[in-house]
Amino acid sequence: MSQPPAPAPTPAPAPGDELPNVVDALRAVRARWRETHRRGGDGRDLPSRELLAAMVQSLSGALFPMRLGPPTLRPEDEDFYVGHTLGAAMVTLREQIAHELRHDARQRGDAEPAPGVAEALASRFLHMLPRVRELLDSDVLAAYQGDPAARSVDEVLLCYPGVRALISHRLAHELYRLGLPLIARVVAELAHADTGIDIHPGATIGAGCFIDHGTGVVIGETAVLGECVRIYQNVTLGAKSFPTDGDGHPLKGQPRHPVVEDEVVIYAGATVLGRITLGRGSVIGGNVWLTRSVPPGSVVTQADMQSHTG
Amino acid sequence: MSQPPAPAPTPAPAPGDELPNVVDALRAVRARWRETHRRGGDGRDLPSRELLAAMVQSLSGALFPMRLGPPTLRPEDEDFYVGHTLGAAMVTLREQIAHELRHDARQRGDAEPAPGVAEALASRFLHMLPRVRELLDSDVLAAYQGDPAARSVDEVLLCYPGVRALISHRLAHELYRLGLPLIARVVAELAHADTGIDIHPGATIGAGCFIDHGTGVVIGETAVLGECVRIYQNVTLGAKSFPTDGDGHPLKGQPRHPVVEDEVVIYAGATVLGRITLGRGSVIGGNVWLTRSVPPGSVVTQADMQSHTG
Amino acid sequence: MSQPPAPAPTPAPAPGDELPNVVDALRAVRARWRETHRRGGDGRDLPSRELLAAMVQSLSGALFPMRLGPPTLRPEDEDFYVGHTLGAAMVTLREQIAHELRHDARQRGDAEPAPGVAEALASRFLHMLPRVRELLDSDVLAAYQGDPAARSVDEVLLCYPGVRALISHRLAHELYRLGLPLIARVVAELAHADTGIDIHPGATIGAGCFIDHGTGVVIGETAVLGECVRIYQNVTLGAKSFPTDGDGHPLKGQPRHPVVEDEVVIYAGATVLGRITLGRGSVIGGNVWLTRSVPPGSVVTQADMQSHTG
Amino acid sequence: MSQPPAPAPTPAPAPGDELPNVVDALRAVRARWRETHRRGGDGRDLPSRELLAAMVQSLSGALFPMRLGPPTLRPEDEDFYVGHTLGAAMVTLREQIAHELRHDARQRGDAEPAPGVAEALASRFLHMLPRVRELLDSDVLAAYQGDPAARSVDEVLLCYPGVRALISHRLAHELYRLGLPLIARVVAELAHADTGIDIHPGATIGAGCFIDHGTGVVIGETAVLGECVRIYQNVTLGAKSFPTDGDGHPLKGQPRHPVVEDEVVIYAGATVLGRITLGRGSVIGGNVWLTRSVPPGSVVTQADMQSHTG
Amino acid sequence: MSQPPAPAPTPAPAPGDELPNVVDALRAVRARWRETHRRGGDGRDLPSRELLAAMVQSLSGALFPMRLGPPTLRPEDEDFYVGHTLGAAMVTLREQIAHELRHDARQRGDAEPAPGVAEALASRFLHMLPRVRELLDSDVLAAYQGDPAARSVDEVLLCYPGVRALISHRLAHELYRLGLPLIARVVAELAHADTGIDIHPGATIGAGCFIDHGTGVVIGETAVLGECVRIYQNVTLGAKSFPTDGDGHPLKGQPRHPVVEDEVVIYAGATVLGRITLGRGSVIGGNVWLTRSVPPGSVVTQADMQSHTG
Amino acid sequence: MSQPPAPAPTPAPAPGDELPNVVDALRAVRARWRETHRRGGDGRDLPSRELLAAMVQSLSGALFPMRLGPPTLRPEDEDFYVGHTLGAAMVTLREQIAHELRHDARQRGDAEPAPGVAEALASRFLHMLPRVRELLDSDVLAAYQGDPAARSVDEVLLCYPGVRALISHRLAHELYRLGLPLIARVVAELAHADTGIDIHPGATIGAGCFIDHGTGVVIGETAVLGECVRIYQNVTLGAKSFPTDGDGHPLKGQPRHPVVEDEVVIYAGATVLGRITLGRGSVIGGNVWLTRSVPPGSVVTQADMQSHTG
Repeated sequence: MSQPPAPAPTPAPAPGDELPNVVDALRAVRARWRETHRRGGDGRDLPSRELLAAMVQSLSGALFPMRLGPPTLRPEDEDFYVGHTLGAAMVTLREQIAHELRHDARQRGDAEPAPGVAEALASRFLHMLPRVRELLDSDVLAAYQGDPAARSVDEVLLCYPGVRALISHRLAHELYRLGLPLIARVVAELAHADTGIDIHPGATIGAGCFIDHGTGVVIGETAVLGECVRIYQNVTLGAKSFPTDGDGHPLKGQPRHPVVEDEVVIYAGATVLGRITLGRGSVIGGNVWLTRSVPPGSVVTQADMQSHTG
Repeated sequence: MSQPPAPAPTPAPAPGDELPNVVDALRAVRARWRETHRRGGDGRDLPSRELLAAMVQSLSGALFPMRLGPPTLRPEDEDFYVGHTLGAAMVTLREQIAHELRHDARQRGDAEPAPGVAEALASRFLHMLPRVRELLDSDVLAAYQGDPAARSVDEVLLCYPGVRALISHRLAHELYRLGLPLIARVVAELAHADTGIDIHPGATIGAGCFIDHGTGVVIGETAVLGECVRIYQNVTLGAKSFPTDGDGHPLKGQPRHPVVEDEVVIYAGATVLGRITLGRGSVIGGNVWLTRSVPPGSVVTQADMQSHTG
Repeated sequence: MSQPPAPAPTPAPAPGDELPNVVDALRAVRARWRETHRRGGDGRDLPSRELLAAMVQSLSGALFPMRLGPPTLRPEDEDFYVGHTLGAAMVTLREQIAHELRHDARQRGDAEPAPGVAEALASRFLHMLPRVRELLDSDVLAAYQGDPAARSVDEVLLCYPGVRALISHRLAHELYRLGLPLIARVVAELAHADTGIDIHPGATIGAGCFIDHGTGVVIGETAVLGECVRIYQNVTLGAKSFPTDGDGHPLKGQPRHPVVEDEVVIYAGATVLGRITLGRGSVIGGNVWLTRSVPPGSVVTQADMQSHTG
Repeated sequence: MSQPPAPAPTPAPAPGDELPNVVDALRAVRARWRETHRRGGDGRDLPSRELLAAMVQSLSGALFPMRLGPPTLRPEDEDFYVGHTLGAAMVTLREQIAHELRHDARQRGDAEPAPGVAEALASRFLHMLPRVRELLDSDVLAAYQGDPAARSVDEVLLCYPGVRALISHRLAHELYRLGLPLIARVVAELAHADTGIDIHPGATIGAGCFIDHGTGVVIGETAVLGECVRIYQNVTLGAKSFPTDGDGHPLKGQPRHPVVEDEVVIYAGATVLGRITLGRGSVIGGNVWLTRSVPPGSVVTQADMQSHTG
Repeated sequence: MSQPPAPAPTPAPAPGDELPNVVDALRAVRARWRETHRRGGDGRDLPSRELLAAMVQSLSGALFPMRLGPPTLRPEDEDFYVGHTLGAAMVTLREQIAHELRHDARQRGDAEPAPGVAEALASRFLHMLPRVRELLDSDVLAAYQGDPAARSVDEVLLCYPGVRALISHRLAHELYRLGLPLIARVVAELAHADTGIDIHPGATIGAGCFIDHGTGVVIGETAVLGECVRIYQNVTLGAKSFPTDGDGHPLKGQPRHPVVEDEVVIYAGATVLGRITLGRGSVIGGNVWLTRSVPPGSVVTQADMQSHTG
Repeated sequence: MSQPPAPAPTPAPAPGDELPNVVDALRAVRARWRETHRRGGDGRDLPSRELLAAMVQSLSGALFPMRLGPPTLRPEDEDFYVGHTLGAAMVTLREQIAHELRHDARQRGDAEPAPGVAEALASRFLHMLPRVRELLDSDVLAAYQGDPAARSVDEVLLCYPGVRALISHRLAHELYRLGLPLIARVVAELAHADTGIDIHPGATIGAGCFIDHGTGVVIGETAVLGECVRIYQNVTLGAKSFPTDGDGHPLKGQPRHPVVEDEVVIYAGATVLGRITLGRGSVIGGNVWLTRSVPPGSVVTQADMQSHTG
């Protein structure tokens, strides 16, 4: 048995002292961290994972009221539900945006953001929702047509983790484009935790995307996917290596992930790395390891790769 | 910095107009979808993810009362707990079945299902539970015996995601066999979200199955697994390609996933595709890519494969 | 369509009989299990997944009060929050420890554990928390410096699943070292379900660890990681095979997982098996399959491996 | 000390037998009751206290959105909130009405109510809501003008139990008028439990009613109150005695409670019994016991009464 | 305006000091209290209001499963529901009894209560439940027959606060008789808060009791009510004065409340004080103030009383 | 049967029109109200009943940690619990105060309150808490000594509604004195709903107050109670009549309720009206109606009163 031996029951310290001692020690560790990172610990201006999770669920319902909204919703009451749910979600979003803007300003040492900025950003987000729904409709259709096991578009919307991941991504991507990378990232990571699909909110994904099974999929920040791309579990669209600054720290924000053109299919376990281009209609086989561009219509299988490398 | 520039604070539209405009635009998108897909939006007859999640948790408790039931349960009260919990779970199941049957009927343009069908199906499911428990006992034992890190059968039942995935699968599979693929799929996807193990409810799995670690495992709809099969993380038992109909759409429902005979072991990352057979007692090595049948007792490693393909 | 035909609505049995029959059949299955495994079903002494999940969330807040604690917390109230939250978490922990000790004693046929043992173990755990926070600070920093997409240390702490997995692991590892493998395992599996990262609580991990994306990562019980190790998604640090006893059952608790020295990087999909050593500063490429030790400074890529095996 | 002596710790019966014995005994008592009252115990068609409580809270919010609705509601989103909340409340109401109609039919031995009746009744109730709000506005105003301690109409709406009791009563009265006495009674009793004000839903109450403090107020089923009536705590508007049928059982449904004309004031503790009339503008003093009609403009004090009775 | 002037905004003390100062001051007050009352503050052995509230609700459901149990309960599952609910309620009760026994022992300076006492008391309580249900059936019937506004026995059970108060009282009275006055009192006060009816758990109440409206009813600890007693709102069955010991403190536990014989009716607002007897079948009129015994068949009205006293 | 006839099932209007029509009608009623009362409907600045209820519960726990705090609290963790709970309660209180101040300013047409005012008021409230606890200790003691049925001071604190009412009152009174009558009133009404005891937050109550049973007690805004006053159920300390302004509206805020000197006892049902004084040590009998001052040491019974009035 590798189990470490159970320690002998040592006499507990005086109960009145123990907890205060640990509280003191933890305060000391926090103080060291704050000093090192020049943080004042002056208030919490971070978005809330819980509130954003609730907001995404509300927005999902507002986007697909009769399928992801409340079970008792009647078709004739749809608009009231949509309007009310969006109104409440916007209250949350405005607050969360204000948190991020303040956090960001403090991070840079800037002045407090002007009042009204959070409101205006939330409003711009709101107006993107009809377009988001259109894109998601195309994704649902792509999944239905692409999976022989799918029996109806409703099953796809209700069950497929790839669709859930894209609902979150398309919302997160709009937030990212509005200059809210932190909120966007929280939304993306909520979907990652739920589905195992890790799409950075910066990634650009065209209409009709289908991610099947999805566990282990990673799509990087600067990846660009065209229309009707199909991706299976454990596919990585990652960075190969990244340029560093003088101190050896990675330079942030360079294009470093693949461009995937329209109608490309990438099978399970394939790893595609670097700012390369997969030409329109290409098929990348399972477990393939690919770090160079391929022209439109390519079919790349593991065997090919091995003959290339062997 | 790749962060998109924060947009200038534009003046918000008149607050009374903004939300109604978006509600109108969303209604228009929904109308286009419904027109295209000939849906009336006439009521919501879809199973509820939340209610089915609660039902699976109740059934888990009823199957293993002293280990997955309420912490305060006393052995002498077990039967009351089991009976009450099953009774309540059946109320939920009957309703969810009725939803799926109505959804299905509307989908096909059929008449409403006869009253009593949902009740009868729920009753047949209920009677499968003792058999389900027996199978799960064999799975728990297999995990305990197969993992050197396992210290007790109780730890296995409490902690192992592979066991949690099999509890859900064995329930989902019974539902699938009763002609309830949508409910079955929701149950399966709940387990997928929880464990990262994606078993289609159609898959047939024999006694004594052990899935270790499990993240990224995919087992397809028509896969057939014998007894005492052991599978590690990231194993795919998938389809290679699927026949299409005249329009190029995949034909649904054909046998297209592997048959895995008794006592086969498949190590992490292996990909097994197509309606092939892995003979009894075979061992498939890690990361192997396999698309052809192998006879009983085969040992297939990556090196073999590479020599085959290189 | 592969959908099995909907069964004909058979007449339900007399409703008063059906449920009792199933309850009886389930009791019979339980009795067989208990007889086979010599269990008396005499009370439930198992840790509670729900309570431990709440405890881990409380401890996370107490470790990082202004970032993972309640959104309304004010810096001047930090110590009260930390002290109160730790105090309440210790109440839960003491109870859960007592459950595990009783379960363990019964398992071995030993006498009930002495009173005060659970209290003493919880106290020792409490005193490890400042050290745990220091280690986690080093992990946060490593993630910030290692990922070009990371914008701030706060984003890393709030969003990165690798950091969440390490918070749980570093807590679980202390519990494991205190001789509480069952509670430790539950804590680890909660993180596994949340992040897709499966770290056995027995694994020893040095400061400054960064696990990026993380889905599908598996780190085994006896693995040892040095400082500043970086790991990507789908990496396995596993066992190759394990010695068995006379009955063919695996011997439990032998060192059987890799030793990874300081500053090693292991890219996505790599599989490292057995009690081998990856020398300091080595880089293991994506999808590499490695079962032998490599000296410090090695760079191992798939191509290398293939030439070795081909 | 009157405390009964603590019983000696008797040996508990065999734990496996105790609970079943009590369950059997309770079943026997239920069987006797059902036999005596000719009830089949065939399903539960009773309204749900919990669901009706939630419905009343929703309706209160929909009637006064900016004051009793959600704290984050914005004026420009009011209509969406009102529409959505009413839509959801009607779902509950339709179900509860259906329960009462079925219960009522079974009670009388009638056939099941026709489908659509519940829907039609809920719809008629919905259309009464604007009138209900107008009446409640008059009540709020009356309280504000009648209480020197009231500082604003908002305080009155937020705090005064008399107003809360009238919100519930005016809703319950509409339900009563629609032939739903059981649901109406549940709504009334919820307000009674909350405020100590017991208004039978059958009572007819004109605009501008003000009940101050209110604890102990009782207003009977056939009471009729005009406009601008003011009532203080512990006032009873009750029945004196009631005619009985041949078996000595009270005849149900006869007018047996007072008629209170416009602008009457009834001070604390007054008891007014029987089908008498309190003429317009009368003032009934505290603790007065009154069983005869009084003409308009009467001032009745305890002293008067005593001289009448003495 | 009587509103006190808003205080000028004084500068807040240093935020880091303020809360600790108040915490210190509160500790000092607690220390004074504990010193004065010789309490060690050594642990909390008090019953929990919240847990007892949940227990009473469970017991109500177990006593009347189809009417106060879960809305989805089916008649054929009744026994499982009853058994499971009682089993879980007994877990709570055993713990709460153990708290009271330890509190009581500490209070008297006695040794810890023997193990098994709590269990034995809970078991004795359990066996009283069938008798409690019989008594409650008689109460429901009495309410139905006594109130012309009652339409069905189900309405009475669902709506009448007098019945809810008696459910709690009959349970509390059994607890009181078992020597658990503190738990009994909490149960009684929960009903008091809900209904406005304040029955001391020591009061003895015969079958067929009907309390109509009920707000303000007070029934004292040593009151004894026969069968078929009817009581209206604001009736007090109280103590007139109580003998004191040498220090002027009231002697606890003496019989000091009225004896009310069978079939007595007491109308609203009547006050009956002292250890007097109201003879069988007497009628006590509204607002009567009565401090002397009356023979069987008496009719006492306010007028009578005034002539007696005037 | 008095049941109104069930209405015939009228055909429902077109479902798409019905709800919008009612929403429109409700909007029209709201518009009329807002026009009449010159309200803009511009945001909700009202305190929240739910949040204040939670705050009072937190404060109760912080005042009596081992008796009203969490059941698992250990004596050695008391200060952390108290500090954390107060810190969190102050967050709520600051927000609620800011709401009231803004509401009040808008009500008067004043400018927005200066920032920092809410913070300063909350801070002043915080510093009153040790004094509040001292007063409550005196109340608990008074109840224990005054009631022969009370067995321990803990029972009194846990069970007695009079004590719960005084906890709320003493908090509400401090808020009232700080110029926050609306929040104070909400707190008072929460206690009124819970206990049936209606104490206006303006009332001044000395140490050692005991309110027994309490249902129906009303104590008015300008009442002044000395030390060691004892009050029973249904006692009113009210206003007799109030001076009106030129328009016949009552003048607000005049002293109009009784002054009750030290050690007065007022028995159940007594009504004491107007700005009169009950001299030290007086005893007011049950049901007495009193509108004139009485000298110290008076004993006033119903009989006296009747001879006075007869």
